[in-house]
Amino acid sequence: MVVNIDRLFSKRATRFRSSEIRELLKLTQIPGMISFAGGLPNPLAFPVDIIHECIEKIFKENIEQALQYGTTEGLTSLRGVLAERMKKNPHHHINCELHDILITSGAQQALSLAAICFLDPGDTYLTSVPAYLGAVQAFHALEANCESIPMNDEGIDTDSLRRNIGRLNRTGIIPKFIYTVPTFQNPSGETMSLSHRKELLDIASEYDFLIIEDDPYSELIFEGDAIPPIKSFDTKGRVIYISTFSKILAPGLRLGWVVASKEILDKFIQAKQASDLCTNGFSQYIAYEYINGGYLDKHVEQIKKLYKRKRDLMLKSLKEYFPSGVKWTMPKGGMFIWITLPKSIDTRLMFQKALAKKVAYVVGEAFFPEGGNYNSMRLNFSYSEDGLIKEGIKRLAEVIKDELATAYQQDTFPPDGV
Amino acid sequence: MVVNIDRLFSKRATRFRSSEIRELLKLTQIPGMISFAGGLPNPLAFPVDIIHECIEKIFKENIEQALQYGTTEGLTSLRGVLAERMKKNPHHHINCELHDILITSGAQQALSLAAICFLDPGDTYLTSVPAYLGAVQAFHALEANCESIPMNDEGIDTDSLRRNIGRLNRTGIIPKFIYTVPTFQNPSGETMSLSHRKELLDIASEYDFLIIEDDPYSELIFEGDAIPPIKSFDTKGRVIYISTFSKILAPGLRLGWVVASKEILDKFIQAKQASDLCTNGFSQYIAYEYINGGYLDKHVEQIKKLYKRKRDLMLKSLKEYFPSGVKWTMPKGGMFIWITLPKSIDTRLMFQKALAKKVAYVVGEAFFPEGGNYNSMRLNFSYSEDGLIKEGIKRLAEVIKDELATAYQQDTFPPDGV
Repeated sequence: MVVNIDRLFSKRATRFRSSEIRELLKLTQIPGMISFAGGLPNPLAFPVDIIHECIEKIFKENIEQALQYGTTEGLTSLRGVLAERMKKNPHHHINCELHDILITSGAQQALSLAAICFLDPGDTYLTSVPAYLGAVQAFHALEANCESIPMNDEGIDTDSLRRNIGRLNRTGIIPKFIYTVPTFQNPSGETMSLSHRKELLDIASEYDFLIIEDDPYSELIFEGDAIPPIKSFDTKGRVIYISTFSKILAPGLRLGWVVASKEILDKFIQAKQASDLCTNGFSQYIAYEYINGGYLDKHVEQIKKLYKRKRDLMLKSLKEYFPSGVKWTMPKGGMFIWITLPKSIDTRLMFQKALAKKVAYVVGEAFFPEGGNYNSMRLNFSYSEDGLIKEGIKRLAEVIKDELATAYQQDTFPPDGV
Repeated sequence: MVVNIDRLFSKRATRFRSSEIRELLKLTQIPGMISFAGGLPNPLAFPVDIIHECIEKIFKENIEQALQYGTTEGLTSLRGVLAERMKKNPHHHINCELHDILITSGAQQALSLAAICFLDPGDTYLTSVPAYLGAVQAFHALEANCESIPMNDEGIDTDSLRRNIGRLNRTGIIPKFIYTVPTFQNPSGETMSLSHRKELLDIASEYDFLIIEDDPYSELIFEGDAIPPIKSFDTKGRVIYISTFSKILAPGLRLGWVVASKEILDKFIQAKQASDLCTNGFSQYIAYEYINGGYLDKHVEQIKKLYKRKRDLMLKSLKEYFPSGVKWTMPKGGMFIWITLPKSIDTRLMFQKALAKKVAYVVGEAFFPEGGNYNSMRLNFSYSEDGLIKEGIKRLAEVIKDELATAYQQDTFPPDGV
């Protein structure tokens, strides 16, 4: 008998949709393509020799433990050095101990655990938009409803946030949490101001929802002072802080971590146990040796130098080649620049033309769970070779100019054909 | 304001319960404890030098790719050699190509993906009992109902299976799948006969549910002929085959894989993307080099020799020390022996007495999602040192004898105190 698979899939599985990031990452493989689409770290940023050294040390000292099953919470020694570092590091200033930390299989798993532990079907969560796709996908997988809060120059529009919560409350809906990337946000590159961080925590406290603070990029700061994470002001366990080794060590090692209250961490640990039992032990030992050997702080300086140069190159090329009427963010760190084109351009329709000229971006709409913002795009500056950044922006500028010219003709052509 | 966390947790999270395996693994750490509780491979079974060689090769040839994000499906080269091996290997005989395979973060993730993709709250699944705890936990996390099917000498009681399905059908319930470990089962050590494998597939086809075939142990065969997996008879995509590198390479690398139909795999891939984006690239390259270099087949022979010796030692010690009236399985492979004690003994109550004598087991009840079977226990023979196996069984025999003596006194004591 043929399998009647549609009867067998869960309701949530029937709602799954393919991710645009996934399809876009495939494009980075086409020969000759200059891709600003993927959110990949540059391989030059991987501390290959240091990792090699760390591995030799593991083979001498801890290889059996590194290859065995470990506890779900994660390697005690790694959690210990992470706690120490977070207390001291100006990008963290989070006062925590090792038992406040859970090691996860990448930050994505932390987002997935949050979805599992907080979202029943039909529950509502808030996110600033544009929003990181992977988070939206994790929350969508658990059949939650998304309420989008626009961003402004200070990182989040708190007036709009209050209005939205008020409107939801009047219909009996209390959101479970707000998701935000306050520093060098993916995709916008923008950073939330200190006052807005504090105000966001106040609002969350007033209406009693949680804050999921996703912080993959704060260490990649090129200029200005570090702004402490929201978690550093949190005395009540209202903030779930998530970070990752993907941008300061290597994403292939799949290591992230969570700092949260004991009550929340206990549930996350139980959910993680059902999800994958424990995190890769070998990777955890590498990360431990990387921090404990004093390599991390030095190597992050190298990554910052590399990415700052690439950001400068991209900003310079944007200024040189992009036509007037196009706006972009000026990120002080991270990996992304957000482009806003004149309203006449639809980046979804322009995408195939860009591909034809062998340059790729992510259409802005992908970062808006409720759609819209068709005239925007995300550019990644960390991955491409220096020479290709200039060439890629030049190509993209030509595509945009062509598109503007066509749009202009269409707009000005007399409507009745005269 | 204090966080009202109970309002915020999802319904499923409020149902989470701590796993007994988790608590038991902690016991293996107490000094002097002889633990037959954990399901750990022996560290002597880890091919440390081979892994070291494989890693050196990766550093020479593929280190940038190994450290970068990869596709959610998994490393193409690894999937390729896995498909080739499964076609040839007598423990598999599964006719599949690389696009039929998804690499997962351990077999546990595959179980979790099955739960996400098939189980809505209140859905029913079937499992043979005793059942692997990790699977039950993954299915329980998604609020599913479990229907237990007893095992018999042939591995599963198919008469009972038909009766149970019939009873469910009459109340309008059609189970989504049956979960089974047909070969050297965890916890019983038993193996399903060829005829029962075929009959199970017939029943699944007749009533149109899926089979989740979990196969972590079939390569660890000590004697007799390999029985092909149910997946090898499956021409309709009714069987989801799951296996792991945890027992043939190392669990710390967190690598498993799934063979399933394209429709099912597509959903699993989308669910995995939301769960952890992709599997550890470094581990995947190690596994690829391990298979491609021809190391795996040779090394499995070593593991089998090691574990067979330990099984023989445990069986011999059981025969030597355990009192009459105690029964045990005679597994032809794998890592576990199942013990059935006289009904007067409750292994839950006996557990603390065993700990006091510094010997640990898993209480049998833990493997019965609906409870019961209080007079049984699981013993692991793969982990402990040879000398400790004999000593541990001796200690356990003393605990059992004490318990029998006490039970005998209680039973024979005149009920009205005369």
